[in-house]
Amino acid sequence: IAQENLIMAEPPGNARLEAFSDGVFAIAITLLVLDLKVPELEHVSPTALRAALLAQWPAYLGFLTSFLTILIIWVNHHGLFRQLTGHTRPLLFTNGLLLLVVTVIPFPTSLTSRFILTDGAGVAAVLYCATQLALALAFNVIWSAAYRGHLIQADVRSNYAQIRRGYRAGPLLYALATLLAYPYPLLGVGLCAGLAVFFAVLSYERQNPA
Amino acid sequence: IAQENLIMAEPPGNARLEAFSDGVFAIAITLLVLDLKVPELEHVSPTALRAALLAQWPAYLGFLTSFLTILIIWVNHHGLFRQLTGHTRPLLFTNGLLLLVVTVIPFPTSLTSRFILTDGAGVAAVLYCATQLALALAFNVIWSAAYRGHLIQADVRSNYAQIRRGYRAGPLLYALATLLAYPYPLLGVGLCAGLAVFFAVLSYERQNPA
Amino acid sequence: IAQENLIMAEPPGNARLEAFSDGVFAIAITLLVLDLKVPELEHVSPTALRAALLAQWPAYLGFLTSFLTILIIWVNHHGLFRQLTGHTRPLLFTNGLLLLVVTVIPFPTSLTSRFILTDGAGVAAVLYCATQLALALAFNVIWSAAYRGHLIQADVRSNYAQIRRGYRAGPLLYALATLLAYPYPLLGVGLCAGLAVFFAVLSYERQNPA
Amino acid sequence: IAQENLIMAEPPGNARLEAFSDGVFAIAITLLVLDLKVPELEHVSPTALRAALLAQWPAYLGFLTSFLTILIIWVNHHGLFRQLTGHTRPLLFTNGLLLLVVTVIPFPTSLTSRFILTDGAGVAAVLYCATQLALALAFNVIWSAAYRGHLIQADVRSNYAQIRRGYRAGPLLYALATLLAYPYPLLGVGLCAGLAVFFAVLSYERQNPA
Repeated sequence: IAQENLIMAEPPGNARLEAFSDGVFAIAITLLVLDLKVPELEHVSPTALRAALLAQWPAYLGFLTSFLTILIIWVNHHGLFRQLTGHTRPLLFTNGLLLLVVTVIPFPTSLTSRFILTDGAGVAAVLYCATQLALALAFNVIWSAAYRGHLIQADVRSNYAQIRRGYRAGPLLYALATLLAYPYPLLGVGLCAGLAVFFAVLSYERQNPA
Repeated sequence: IAQENLIMAEPPGNARLEAFSDGVFAIAITLLVLDLKVPELEHVSPTALRAALLAQWPAYLGFLTSFLTILIIWVNHHGLFRQLTGHTRPLLFTNGLLLLVVTVIPFPTSLTSRFILTDGAGVAAVLYCATQLALALAFNVIWSAAYRGHLIQADVRSNYAQIRRGYRAGPLLYALATLLAYPYPLLGVGLCAGLAVFFAVLSYERQNPA
Repeated sequence: IAQENLIMAEPPGNARLEAFSDGVFAIAITLLVLDLKVPELEHVSPTALRAALLAQWPAYLGFLTSFLTILIIWVNHHGLFRQLTGHTRPLLFTNGLLLLVVTVIPFPTSLTSRFILTDGAGVAAVLYCATQLALALAFNVIWSAAYRGHLIQADVRSNYAQIRRGYRAGPLLYALATLLAYPYPLLGVGLCAGLAVFFAVLSYERQNPA
Repeated sequence: IAQENLIMAEPPGNARLEAFSDGVFAIAITLLVLDLKVPELEHVSPTALRAALLAQWPAYLGFLTSFLTILIIWVNHHGLFRQLTGHTRPLLFTNGLLLLVVTVIPFPTSLTSRFILTDGAGVAAVLYCATQLALALAFNVIWSAAYRGHLIQADVRSNYAQIRRGYRAGPLLYALATLLAYPYPLLGVGLCAGLAVFFAVLSYERQNPA
């Protein structure tokens, strides 16, 4: 009877955990726009404004990449939590770790937009790629916490080996990008962007086999 | 049995997709206020403060227009998703495309507020209208993804031709506004504002026939 | 059968409307902190820092008043929507009007914090009180939309006259504060703060009769 | 019959209260990143950028501490509200008090990051610790409101004395940290950080006894 009480009183499964996470994702993805600055011009002309807007292309690219990154993280988070049956305290904190990295994303993005065309490109690109690496690691830690807490749905276990391989591959590839980012900043950042698209397409293919 | 498990485990329909989208809408609509700046005055007097506040009218107009735009998008998003029975991965990403444009809205709005009274008005207005065009296109893409994913409720299909016509008209009208915006900036921006009100009234009329 | 389908497909009542509104309330109430600025000091000493922090008291007062205002609006919004059984499109848009005023609150608050100790106090205070007046009017408009849309629960109607009187009193009192605010800025702003506390206590008393 | 109507019409328990609170937590925790500033460099070089980034270590530490603080508050809030069966108006307002302190957190954090290495460290550290003290007090006030409103689930009462002891200990320890913070700023701030980790581990231990 006590257990039944408990079940009735607590909200359905991970509702609040997901709501809180969704809030953080939504805010982080929306704050990115603050990096798109209205140009300050001494003498306003169509040509000058157009040139000033075009000169901000690293900011636009950074905005797009980070938006896509957070969107894909959200899609993956959504997909992961659909397979979970509840939460333990370690899951709350490992999920908090992921959210920490998500909220950080605007910082290396701004940094990279600002310095990618300067001598500081290597430093900025390393931080950018390291953030992506941290994201990949956070997903692994969440998955471990879910596995150890017996939170994964029964019908998912048949795909377990495949899912685990996918999770393991991420950190290795992002670690490679981080290593390449200092000598070859554009390559490192480009690799991260490519991996984001790749993981998005991969998970789409898996869901919709030809 | 496996399928039944799946149904029980996943949250009701599009709950998380809607919650995430609502978060983005709510933040984008609330961030608009950051464009209303406290005037910096050297010598404070009632007259000077009143004049400084009145001189910001493009910012107030931009705030109101963008607020109304995002509100109408939310109302339409709300109306669209009530007709859907679930989601596919393409729906998640096309919805993400809409959210991308929604989070961008504050940027062309700031730009237009800042430059509408200068020689840069044409450039700013084109970007403003192009953003509205992108919004209209994003709704079409979501609708397509929903249709192809067989996500539209059975009882909606009777109105299908009418709904589709409404969706198709948007991009054409906003494309026209974008074309007009460079030579006639105020006309372009005004047309976008008018279309927003028109679509809001139209959808109201449709729901409440005389 | 068609109607039953519709009922099953739509989310429970006002869930999304409330979620979107809660998002706006939560963001507006949290953005207020951006008005608390870290002082810029040429020569740092405990005395100088303490003095600089104390000199910002109008900002702290503005923060507290606006926080309390938005919290009370949220409590009242929560109380109002518990009495509603669903929504019509006019309710969506009148609720949008309330959210518009809620997102605006940080602007007159900043303005008042900045100018309340200067000759511009009257102008700022009028805008502050006018915003409160707009909030009270927005609640009246929502209530009207709910009443005309037959959205109010049956068991609430017995209190209808009393509730309506409460809603009507608000705009009159805030209009008075707005009139007083130009000649007597502190009185106007103080009256608004007092009314906020009064309405919060009143609604508490009503719920907990002695 | 009237009562049954009421129960069906109102949303499940504390859903909206939790959603609003989650929104505030999510925004407060995400806004912290705005304190991580892109360095402004006259002459850009890898060494200069690296040095400028490293020189911001108090900002990173402040970010991490505040993130962890808000995350732990959220976890505790989550845990507390799972034990409640509904809400009264006092619970809404005492919860509002907690949210007030949560939204304030970025301010003393910024202040401490800025002044911890200067003569103003004592003033900043006192405010930092006082905010943590206010958080602990707010939880006590919420718990009191819940207890007096008969909102605590029956099966929780067996742990009542233990839970109450835990709640009582917090304010005393944070008051001690506040007293120590003026003469020993780093000790005070470090004590607060330590207490946050301690409470997180403690509540984990309690849930997972060896």
